[in-house]
Amino acid sequence: MAALEPSEKPISTIVIIIAMQAEALPLIKKFQLSETHDSLFPKGVPWIRYHGIYKNLHINLIWPGKDLSFGVDSVGTISASLVTYASIQALKPDLIINAGTSGGFKAKGACIGDVFLASDVAFHDRRIPIPVFDQYGIGARKIFSTPNILKELNLKEGKLSTGDSLDMSPHDEVSIVANNATLKDMEGAAVAYVADLLSVPAILVKAVTDIVDGDKPTAEEFLKNLVAVTAALDVAVTQVVDFISGKCLSEL
Amino acid sequence: MAALEPSEKPISTIVIIIAMQAEALPLIKKFQLSETHDSLFPKGVPWIRYHGIYKNLHINLIWPGKDLSFGVDSVGTISASLVTYASIQALKPDLIINAGTSGGFKAKGACIGDVFLASDVAFHDRRIPIPVFDQYGIGARKIFSTPNILKELNLKEGKLSTGDSLDMSPHDEVSIVANNATLKDMEGAAVAYVADLLSVPAILVKAVTDIVDGDKPTAEEFLKNLVAVTAALDVAVTQVVDFISGKCLSEL
Repeated sequence: MAALEPSEKPISTIVIIIAMQAEALPLIKKFQLSETHDSLFPKGVPWIRYHGIYKNLHINLIWPGKDLSFGVDSVGTISASLVTYASIQALKPDLIINAGTSGGFKAKGACIGDVFLASDVAFHDRRIPIPVFDQYGIGARKIFSTPNILKELNLKEGKLSTGDSLDMSPHDEVSIVANNATLKDMEGAAVAYVADLLSVPAILVKAVTDIVDGDKPTAEEFLKNLVAVTAALDVAVTQVVDFISGKCLSEL
Repeated sequence: MAALEPSEKPISTIVIIIAMQAEALPLIKKFQLSETHDSLFPKGVPWIRYHGIYKNLHINLIWPGKDLSFGVDSVGTISASLVTYASIQALKPDLIINAGTSGGFKAKGACIGDVFLASDVAFHDRRIPIPVFDQYGIGARKIFSTPNILKELNLKEGKLSTGDSLDMSPHDEVSIVANNATLKDMEGAAVAYVADLLSVPAILVKAVTDIVDGDKPTAEEFLKNLVAVTAALDVAVTQVVDFISGKCLSEL
């Protein structure tokens, strides 16, 4: 009997990468995860792993924690890259889920509270105007396709553009338009880059907290909607995990 | 007899992080390093370690390699963060040296070919206009002080600002001015962040390939000067390593 391909074995271990504590806490409660104090990560890093078994899935929620110098959530591409790398090395997950809030473009059909799966990612703040380096900087990549999740859960699908700023400069805007993005976040393309590097499929679940091409300041709108939109995000992530339970990668 | 403090033991293992192959090759030759094919790094990553013993120092030069999709050097903060993290985990070095080329500001006294040690680092493309998050985004930190290297080798000293673009947008410029930077690069603050996270001292040796506040386009000037300035960088890095040989951290 031939061995099963990885894509045909039931998914067993999931790593969920979430940048902000406010986004993570409802899911920790929902999946009844416990903070672990093992030595999975090096001494001194603020990264926190929450673990539990939910519907036969080993769920590991990784939050990069509070920055050691400034005490705020360690958002952005560097922390997201590092925890994705360290989690994959330590846990060998079958699947990565990066869940979080994002900005959305109403011109592309995004509304506050919408939950999207990213179809593609790219960066919008890595401008390197040298042939080929320019494409490396943009770093466009397709995300692992999950047509059955999309259809079953009735989620929206769109392209995601990632950068390390919450605001959007005119240069960022030009790149985001070139990336044809519906969504703008601060971690997605970094998580996808590292997951690809280590050959682990990753899906990106993003809920819209603010309309980037609207008339309200991003930071204000983001903070105003964070709690309510996080609830929508957590419902969607729970549905995604429920759907994954008992299935293989090829069934997603 | 009391055990020696780490800062009072002779330095034994050094990790040199270099983003571009053109910057790395002369040093690989100079220190007679060999490419290793051990399993220090995970399967599939393009990162390359060169190792050798030079003047009683274990020298590990880590180059993030060519991007798997685009075939160009894996420049920028994400790759620099990942290889710094993975190298520290695997090699437990006494000291990190990030060596590379950078832009310089003539208004701050930088000239083409100058070699600097960074005194401080910060980011200029992580704008998060929410209280405290704004400071986290900038991520200013002091670099491990090496007054004896500075004096003995007659190097210049200046503040370094890091971002993922080779060019400088108006928003970047405002941040770079606020960071009071003499130098602009694409990796330094990321290497320093990870080194700090894992409590390894890091020094940043940066040679100026292009004048950011001059009248020549950055990409053109960068490519024109890359080879000549790399030679100056390699002389300086060799002098730094020669100086380090046989000394303790507290003597640098």
